[in-house]
Amino acid sequence: MRSNSNLAIGSIVSRDSGGSLVEQIVRTVACRIDDKLLRTGSRMPSIRQFADEQKVSRFTVVEAYDRLVANGYLESRRGSGFFVRERASLINNHTPHLSDIHKIPTSQQPDVVWLVRNMLRQLPPQKMPGSGLLPHEWLDGELVANGLRAVSRLNQSLLLHYGTQQGFLPFRQQLQLKLAELEIAAAPEQIVTTNGVTQALDLVAREFTQPGDTIFVDDPAWFLMFGTFATLGTKVIGIPRLHDGPDVAKLAELAALHKPKLYIIHSVLHNPTSTSLSAAKAFQVLKTAEQHDFMIVEDDIYCDMHPGSAVQPATRLSALDQLNRVIYLGGFSKTLAANLRVGFIATSRDTAIRLADRKMLSSLTTNEISERVVHKILSEGHYRKHVDRIRGKLDSARNEVTARVEKLGMKVEYRTPAGMFLWVDTGNDTIALTEKALEKGFLLAPGSLFSPHQLPSTKMRLNVAAMSDVSVWHFLENELS
Amino acid sequence: MRSNSNLAIGSIVSRDSGGSLVEQIVRTVACRIDDKLLRTGSRMPSIRQFADEQKVSRFTVVEAYDRLVANGYLESRRGSGFFVRERASLINNHTPHLSDIHKIPTSQQPDVVWLVRNMLRQLPPQKMPGSGLLPHEWLDGELVANGLRAVSRLNQSLLLHYGTQQGFLPFRQQLQLKLAELEIAAAPEQIVTTNGVTQALDLVAREFTQPGDTIFVDDPAWFLMFGTFATLGTKVIGIPRLHDGPDVAKLAELAALHKPKLYIIHSVLHNPTSTSLSAAKAFQVLKTAEQHDFMIVEDDIYCDMHPGSAVQPATRLSALDQLNRVIYLGGFSKTLAANLRVGFIATSRDTAIRLADRKMLSSLTTNEISERVVHKILSEGHYRKHVDRIRGKLDSARNEVTARVEKLGMKVEYRTPAGMFLWVDTGNDTIALTEKALEKGFLLAPGSLFSPHQLPSTKMRLNVAAMSDVSVWHFLENELS
Repeated sequence: MRSNSNLAIGSIVSRDSGGSLVEQIVRTVACRIDDKLLRTGSRMPSIRQFADEQKVSRFTVVEAYDRLVANGYLESRRGSGFFVRERASLINNHTPHLSDIHKIPTSQQPDVVWLVRNMLRQLPPQKMPGSGLLPHEWLDGELVANGLRAVSRLNQSLLLHYGTQQGFLPFRQQLQLKLAELEIAAAPEQIVTTNGVTQALDLVAREFTQPGDTIFVDDPAWFLMFGTFATLGTKVIGIPRLHDGPDVAKLAELAALHKPKLYIIHSVLHNPTSTSLSAAKAFQVLKTAEQHDFMIVEDDIYCDMHPGSAVQPATRLSALDQLNRVIYLGGFSKTLAANLRVGFIATSRDTAIRLADRKMLSSLTTNEISERVVHKILSEGHYRKHVDRIRGKLDSARNEVTARVEKLGMKVEYRTPAGMFLWVDTGNDTIALTEKALEKGFLLAPGSLFSPHQLPSTKMRLNVAAMSDVSVWHFLENELS
Repeated sequence: MRSNSNLAIGSIVSRDSGGSLVEQIVRTVACRIDDKLLRTGSRMPSIRQFADEQKVSRFTVVEAYDRLVANGYLESRRGSGFFVRERASLINNHTPHLSDIHKIPTSQQPDVVWLVRNMLRQLPPQKMPGSGLLPHEWLDGELVANGLRAVSRLNQSLLLHYGTQQGFLPFRQQLQLKLAELEIAAAPEQIVTTNGVTQALDLVAREFTQPGDTIFVDDPAWFLMFGTFATLGTKVIGIPRLHDGPDVAKLAELAALHKPKLYIIHSVLHNPTSTSLSAAKAFQVLKTAEQHDFMIVEDDIYCDMHPGSAVQPATRLSALDQLNRVIYLGGFSKTLAANLRVGFIATSRDTAIRLADRKMLSSLTTNEISERVVHKILSEGHYRKHVDRIRGKLDSARNEVTARVEKLGMKVEYRTPAGMFLWVDTGNDTIALTEKALEKGFLLAPGSLFSPHQLPSTKMRLNVAAMSDVSVWHFLENELS
């Protein structure tokens, strides 16, 4: 009995794709389930059958199936084998009370939760041209490992207790200096550390909105926050992003109409377009915010990948406004280690106190051990050299990838001189493309994900640092010719 | 000019109370501000005056004032000196839209945010008989430091990327074994790691309630969650806690009246009473939950301090119900290190997926580095011996403190044979007592904090592990005689 032709089992195990055989099987089957190529309830091949077809040992298959069960992909029914489990999505199925506020399509298409789950599934980095992170060989594990060792040698009582409410003070003092270089004056008491920018956005949105309120985002924009805001019952509206910032006429028009509470914006190296805000646009955005009385959240997570305004003009709203109407977010997940989970908020003194209380009530404190690690790396001066190196590598990768992408007939929407992302128009539906890519074991980031309403798109985001795998190029060549 | 008689500056610097002079000044002034003994807007003594009165150098005062400014306690007005800043509280001042749902008194009395801020201010542990943590000399910093060093030696790519969505799998596999010993069957996919139990409670409450819904808690109960639930706009109702669990008649009566969505309960070593749930009560609680269709959240953070039901009868609701209607929470902040921020949720498969999605949308992932540290400590078998030692020390401390407390005429409400807390009746208003204690540099935990409606109380919680400072006893002797 051949149980499931969708499996295309023949292609699962390619002994050159990194990781143990077990890991390869787990990854590939999990991909297909997330991608809905393997449907809920369908029966997996028996262990013997799978082992024979793949020419691997039964032990390998048993271990792979066990891990898939442990991770909620399969379930084992006694006596009748392994079946694909239902993996319910938060957004699609579990916020019925939000449905009248913000309808999120319950399609079979990749959604936010789907993509982030895939990101977190830890495919080999070279298989993730859609990833938002640098491959680990671009980062400096030794910096982080040294930091951990240094912290482990501290007076041990420092390791044991809770951190402080706003975050490790010497680290906040260091952030004060970092912000000063960006012409943003923020005393340590204006800074609150967070579990990455994601927690920062959650805290700010919870502080400033109530269910039914409207939040503006760029269109396209970083997708995870659409889900975050949907769980809060807020309405998300996109402001078209142009080469030098938002469409300010549209911003003013929509602000008058929707009376937003917040506008979340990437001023510098916007995700996914890598564009930055011009001085003129920055001024217009602030005037509009004042006129319609909304707060601006400036997410500056790509800060350290920006080469300075001599190379690419960029104006930070926080530098103009000095943290009155603008809340600044930053972090070290992109340049140091996502796993440290170190981000921060800089804002007015009063808002900082309120957000620190909110952080305390939702997670008590952040991890001071991680904050000490980042503090050490920053204070010893290694960080600056490290991000210089990253920028240099990004520049050559960007040039090379841009040339190859254009040779394939794709259009790079903005030929920006900085950043890790290219926003490319493939001329094809990128959802279909993403589904095909997943069959080959690649993760793409289709344009629909970055659309506040998940509208279909022919665009997608490419990570220039994650395009070294030749088979990714072969795939694109085949599909786009 | 003597600027502020409330300061009682004479008593600020006691050279024997641990920490540098600067730290002592910072702590004491901060205490007095939090305690409202120093009023908002009042002027601090000049640097010279403070230095002269305290017989410390002006540099010391400058540094202390600077830190107080950095921490938002003081503000410096150019040319006219230092003044006490307003420190707005989240609950008291910043959730006006909740006021019609859940009125929290805006008194000058210690409130939840106040106590937790004080906890996090890191007074010397021996000055915190009201603390919820073990003093660090009771913990094993070497275990944590070794764990960090081991993790720093891992393949560095493991340090750099995000953790997985539900948490580090080998750690969840280990938790499966830990739970099995408690007769709770939970596969790894039923477990979601969190940033401590605080994040677990926040995620669960956000998943199962909407603004206006009712959450039941024990009365008395752990205070931080009152604030957490208030920020969600839910109504908190207390169920009287007796020596063997809640008053089940009252539970049924209030459940019929309020139709709660959740009941948060400490079955084992309840905070603050150290009582545990009897089998009969456990069964009644579950029947009531079923009848009135609410979920139970069993917070088992004190699990490893419990010596087994031979010493103190204790029934876990999760063991009876097997994670259908009961959600189990646990963590390692009490026994390993609060700073690692490692907690977890065990629940049904479907709820685990939903909570993992929610965790992803509010903080992306937890810190896998910390999870690897805890995993290492647990898997190498050190943990069991470590908690055995803690229990032994707690037993002698509890006996000694109980005897001394009773000798002072206080009543120990429940003479329980386990746990770190005594719930004592002082016969006096414990808010006034707490205020006086703060003047002496001690942090008490008055009964009103543990009351869901912050009602005044003659009771307070003592941490038997934090009663070694002779001056704490002198204080109690003076005040209670």
